[in-house]
Amino acid sequence: MEPCQLSATQAASLIKSRKLSAEELMRSCLARINARDALIRAWLHIEPERAIRAAREADKLQASGVLHGLPIGVKDVIDTEDYPTTQNSPIYAGLHVGRDAACVSLARGAGGLVLGKTDTVEFASSGRKALTRNPYNPAHTPGGTSSGSAAAVADFMVPLAFGTQTSGSLIRPAAFTGIYAMKPTWNRVSREGVRMYAISLDTVGWYARSVEDLSLFASALGVPRQDEPVALRDLRVGVCRSPVWSHIEPSGAAALERAARGLRESGAQVQDFVLPAQFDTLRAAHAAISHREAGVAFLPEYVNAHALLAQGLRDKVENSDGISDATLLASYATADRCRPEFDALFGHELDVILTPSAPGEAPEGLATTGNAVFNTMWTLLHVPCVNIPAGWGEHRLPVGVQLVGPRWSDARLLAMAAAIAPTIDTDSQARLDALW
Amino acid sequence: MEPCQLSATQAASLIKSRKLSAEELMRSCLARINARDALIRAWLHIEPERAIRAAREADKLQASGVLHGLPIGVKDVIDTEDYPTTQNSPIYAGLHVGRDAACVSLARGAGGLVLGKTDTVEFASSGRKALTRNPYNPAHTPGGTSSGSAAAVADFMVPLAFGTQTSGSLIRPAAFTGIYAMKPTWNRVSREGVRMYAISLDTVGWYARSVEDLSLFASALGVPRQDEPVALRDLRVGVCRSPVWSHIEPSGAAALERAARGLRESGAQVQDFVLPAQFDTLRAAHAAISHREAGVAFLPEYVNAHALLAQGLRDKVENSDGISDATLLASYATADRCRPEFDALFGHELDVILTPSAPGEAPEGLATTGNAVFNTMWTLLHVPCVNIPAGWGEHRLPVGVQLVGPRWSDARLLAMAAAIAPTIDTDSQARLDALW
Repeated sequence: MEPCQLSATQAASLIKSRKLSAEELMRSCLARINARDALIRAWLHIEPERAIRAAREADKLQASGVLHGLPIGVKDVIDTEDYPTTQNSPIYAGLHVGRDAACVSLARGAGGLVLGKTDTVEFASSGRKALTRNPYNPAHTPGGTSSGSAAAVADFMVPLAFGTQTSGSLIRPAAFTGIYAMKPTWNRVSREGVRMYAISLDTVGWYARSVEDLSLFASALGVPRQDEPVALRDLRVGVCRSPVWSHIEPSGAAALERAARGLRESGAQVQDFVLPAQFDTLRAAHAAISHREAGVAFLPEYVNAHALLAQGLRDKVENSDGISDATLLASYATADRCRPEFDALFGHELDVILTPSAPGEAPEGLATTGNAVFNTMWTLLHVPCVNIPAGWGEHRLPVGVQLVGPRWSDARLLAMAAAIAPTIDTDSQARLDALW
Repeated sequence: MEPCQLSATQAASLIKSRKLSAEELMRSCLARINARDALIRAWLHIEPERAIRAAREADKLQASGVLHGLPIGVKDVIDTEDYPTTQNSPIYAGLHVGRDAACVSLARGAGGLVLGKTDTVEFASSGRKALTRNPYNPAHTPGGTSSGSAAAVADFMVPLAFGTQTSGSLIRPAAFTGIYAMKPTWNRVSREGVRMYAISLDTVGWYARSVEDLSLFASALGVPRQDEPVALRDLRVGVCRSPVWSHIEPSGAAALERAARGLRESGAQVQDFVLPAQFDTLRAAHAAISHREAGVAFLPEYVNAHALLAQGLRDKVENSDGISDATLLASYATADRCRPEFDALFGHELDVILTPSAPGEAPEGLATTGNAVFNTMWTLLHVPCVNIPAGWGEHRLPVGVQLVGPRWSDARLLAMAAAIAPTIDTDSQARLDALW
């Protein structure tokens, strides 16, 4: 087994007990990148010598942080003090910011080593797509906008990576690449130093290849582990087809049914769950808010680098959808009413929601990163979501389902995901075999 | 008259018509700083040669932007690509970020010239105070946390400056130093590149010495001018003593009465206005949200630079006030309910609220920057506020009142302020005389 195949938790444990060096792990990840990234193109910027040097320095120290010696990928809309932060925009090509984003600072504080910057859709918004390809079939997208981070973790180039979600940019790529993703509660982890797209929606999150690794990473970011294990038979799971079920594809529908069946067979209490009718309006509210807030966020580039800004972002500044101030405020009000109502669903009759992560498999080609229709509602609700790989679609590409809980239940959601994941994701060995 | 005494609007007009050069204006501002800043200490970082060079470059160009050739002060929690951004924290001493904050980028895009960085309370939060003194009496604070920006504009060192407000950090210093301030609607201007303290509250705003100049600056920041003038006799002004009136001091009460009388005598329809009872809870909601959100924002420094972080900020990370997740969410819900209710007050019976900017005059000493009790509610409501100088207190220090409107009425609020200010602020010549 190559070190880069280890989970983050395994690798951290081996490094701590000196059975593996951080340098060996870093070299293994770099070798994997060297072998595969000409095809996958997950990375925008790596500096192998710097990364190896950092690993050697880590090896001189006694492990103290939970991420000691672990290589981490960073979506290139997130600032790093050492590497450039380009946001995949020609406006910022080669720009060195000189200060770590809050999430990167926390990862480094826990001993994590930034391996490099991963490709992203321009500004994690619209415009220029990442060049990244799906590791399971390079003719398909890995999803976006966190394209590079998802593909890098999926392809065993790095055990952990940061992404961001404003619509569905964390969960969807995880579903398309067969990995785990945590989109935490909005502002559960500081978004400082992460490119702004829509301030009410933008959320920093992370990728790994197991729930255990998501939790390890979470603990470094200020989301403490919930130690009491969750018993499946006590769990009341609501299977939510959501107001956008008409967008589901056969592979997505089959994955949700398989997941629900697996959970039921493992003893969980699985019921269909229908959201109150007013939640139907959240999708439109998300669209209005993201459009208008993007208009604020991209005004500087619109003014100062007009020709280099993608037309889709210029449209937002020009408010091409004609969303009035009144509609913006009504959209905020819709979200504000639904959030506490959603939180209140949990506790008495429901512990967690199971819902699709995406319509189905990753689409062919790189012109689209897929549809975020199954994600925007949860992003707007500010609630934590965890993607769990849920088998394969008809094109032998991964399909995912997500677990959703109420705001600020991030630690509990991860604990539930740890109990639930083995009943849904029985293919981790198959994924490894497919890529090696 | 010295060029530095000109309003921004006057100076921009003279520069455009080549009757004044940007270099002359910059040299005049630098001379004022040279003469006064050893006493006032508004500036953390200036580079006179760089500023003069930038002014000379501006003089080579035909004026196109509305701020062409105007020197601007930037609170040192706001990133600038040329000057360091220290946040008045030893953790970031001398740090060069290499990228302008969005607001700075917009100001430069309109032809503005960054003169330098102004002193601030540590992280615009709590901890180390600015060393800045009140221009009208250096034994008194200029207020905070935007201490340096307010004092620099008040003292004629610069016609325009950026500040930020999370509690009362824009409006209160303006009141204490006899200048005008605009705290726009939350996220009306992008906060990207501005140090995060409490994401739901932090607001970028600006200082000037007249409403006309506030509007000029606003137009560069994406808040277009409302061209139709406002007729005073049509204005329905609600005099709001607010739920925290018990904190008012005699000078603050007298200023509010004077302002209301001036408005009434000028033909406006002035009525007392009492907010609905549920607004009484906003102050506590603001405290809970700012405390918990600061706990997220300062976690990186807590982890990585513990000894250098002020105890007041460590307390927030440790949640020393013991604010539960449920209380945080209930506080969000309070704000979410009150915001549309507040907006709905306007239109039928009310055009604008007149309310104190601070309890009274600036306190003596630099150990406190004064009390934000008259500001936190409006910040949490996300509504635009304009400070108007409203005469003098018993210690011959300035006192202010603020105008408040509904969300996203920023342009209209400035238009109303332009009509209202002359009836309240009759002392601009006295302020000039006092400082020269």
